[in-house]
Amino acid sequence: MRSFVIKETDKAILPDLIDKINNLTKPKGSLGLLEKVAAQIGLIQQTLSPELRKPQNIIFAADHGIVTEGVSFSAPEVTAQMISNFIKGGAGVNMFARQHGFGIKLVDCGVNCDFGPMEGLIDRKIRKITSNYLHEAAMTEEEFDRAIEIGAEIVDMVYAEGTNVVSFGEMGIANTSTSSLWMTYLTGIPLSDCVGAGSGLSREGVEHKYNVLRRCMENYKGDGSAKDILRYFGGFEMLAAVGGMLRAAELGMIIIVDGFIMTNCVLAGRALYPALTDYCIYGHQGDECGHKLVLDYLKAEPLLNLGLRLGEGTGAICAYPLLVSAVNMINEMASFKSAAVTKYFK
Amino acid sequence: MRSFVIKETDKAILPDLIDKINNLTKPKGSLGLLEKVAAQIGLIQQTLSPELRKPQNIIFAADHGIVTEGVSFSAPEVTAQMISNFIKGGAGVNMFARQHGFGIKLVDCGVNCDFGPMEGLIDRKIRKITSNYLHEAAMTEEEFDRAIEIGAEIVDMVYAEGTNVVSFGEMGIANTSTSSLWMTYLTGIPLSDCVGAGSGLSREGVEHKYNVLRRCMENYKGDGSAKDILRYFGGFEMLAAVGGMLRAAELGMIIIVDGFIMTNCVLAGRALYPALTDYCIYGHQGDECGHKLVLDYLKAEPLLNLGLRLGEGTGAICAYPLLVSAVNMINEMASFKSAAVTKYFK
Repeated sequence: MRSFVIKETDKAILPDLIDKINNLTKPKGSLGLLEKVAAQIGLIQQTLSPELRKPQNIIFAADHGIVTEGVSFSAPEVTAQMISNFIKGGAGVNMFARQHGFGIKLVDCGVNCDFGPMEGLIDRKIRKITSNYLHEAAMTEEEFDRAIEIGAEIVDMVYAEGTNVVSFGEMGIANTSTSSLWMTYLTGIPLSDCVGAGSGLSREGVEHKYNVLRRCMENYKGDGSAKDILRYFGGFEMLAAVGGMLRAAELGMIIIVDGFIMTNCVLAGRALYPALTDYCIYGHQGDECGHKLVLDYLKAEPLLNLGLRLGEGTGAICAYPLLVSAVNMINEMASFKSAAVTKYFK
Repeated sequence: MRSFVIKETDKAILPDLIDKINNLTKPKGSLGLLEKVAAQIGLIQQTLSPELRKPQNIIFAADHGIVTEGVSFSAPEVTAQMISNFIKGGAGVNMFARQHGFGIKLVDCGVNCDFGPMEGLIDRKIRKITSNYLHEAAMTEEEFDRAIEIGAEIVDMVYAEGTNVVSFGEMGIANTSTSSLWMTYLTGIPLSDCVGAGSGLSREGVEHKYNVLRRCMENYKGDGSAKDILRYFGGFEMLAAVGGMLRAAELGMIIIVDGFIMTNCVLAGRALYPALTDYCIYGHQGDECGHKLVLDYLKAEPLLNLGLRLGEGTGAICAYPLLVSAVNMINEMASFKSAAVTKYFK
């Protein structure tokens, strides 16, 4: 795997950021989380006048061999069908992207379908589907490295287009299973608290999924290192997202984190490069069992909590106007001095 | 007081709305609250293809006689100073309004200041400040009627401009006190659970505020009807908001509800016309003690929870893009049939 240079943001500028925010015409702290977001963006960009440029959502898609064990509510052919829907612009993520001016990059990392050349689809297929990690590693070390590399490459692409704020989405039936496994290994939270209904399993379905994943853990004989866990239970699309996040942090970009799956990609990236989280703003806390737990583990304060569980980056994109508000606040709002308003606080 | 004709929304169209939403290309229910918002807007507009037109935020400003009892952290002159800040475009609400394309109507209902004619300020001053309700009714019945009428008039104004979605904001130092009193009388929740820090009171400050408000309740000798409670402890700006909400509901407009103070205006309007809540979408749950309680009482599901406590309509305006998302979803997203995607659910 390539190495990344990810530095913690330099906190020396923080007192000036806080001072600027506290002198805007509002009671101290009265813009709540928006004030924290403004400060974090200021830290990432090392400026008192931050800006957001050309937001883009990168969707990585792939299939998971574990799906044959019946761990998902959705039919496996949906991954491929949704690729066409994304390209035609009819999916949830397209609609939100249009609304908020996001570009979309759609990347096939391992969908179980021969698309042939297709406008709007970036073909980086590693293999049609991962191996079934109930019995063997999902992918080889070379495939792991390739997935990380693909993520980094696509981030380089959007960076070259002038983007400084990026979200990641995914499409991959059964990828909440990988998420739950990564989560339990990397946080120590029991598997039972990490497994949920995904796209709509019944109580019995969740029970079955839990039992399959427990057997996967029993069968696992690797060295237990973070990298081995990520590879063994990984999905191509999720490791591409990890590589993308690491490269985005290396480039000093703002990362908007989507739902349960992408939060576990942050967890994975952080296991390799702890400073990653300095660059992450959490868009949405979903209802998937375990999402709140992993967010709490990361000390994350998600901006939205709308019960979304669509993936694709939708939770991140829906949160974007709040980042814009935070940046507008610090750049445009009058100060007590400029507006001749008595400070609300003594 | 004038009367309003406010009908419950006709639920006959609801099954068709739900059917349309359930056939969009996403797991059933996976857009969470956005699906509920889309259905509610469809009900208000009685259509499967709703639309949002020319959103406007109406800010009513006034001063409160009770402020002399030391119930607010902020200096009383701030109400008047902030009027100038709004007009110059430097306040929090201006920034968010620009971001989301909101018009602003700023209405002086009773600010303790002689502004003279001022561009951008609608002069409907009833009296410079309400009476101190520790000792007497805040306003006369005629003044109450006038405040309701002003609210309705301004809503007529925005309606004539083509607006079909409106939020209300307020500026009035000490108006969380009125809110807490209305809330305890109209819900039966004990005063101690309705009183909070407002714009930034310390623990001792909240204690003092509570004691003052408790004495106000002891001194009150009215007939205990909702209308008498609203008048006795009212603020001109809050009753104008109540009148505005009632007129907006009568006209079939969507009302986006801001924070603690505006939620209590919904509570007040609902006490007079219960069907009002059919037209209300709750933008934000703030940290003010009591806000969650009154929202729960109203069975409201607020869209945001960002720790905002600025008022002015900011919580409502920040939630607006989510209404747009909901409407775009129902209008633009592909259906399983149109996109040839296997239904996620069986």
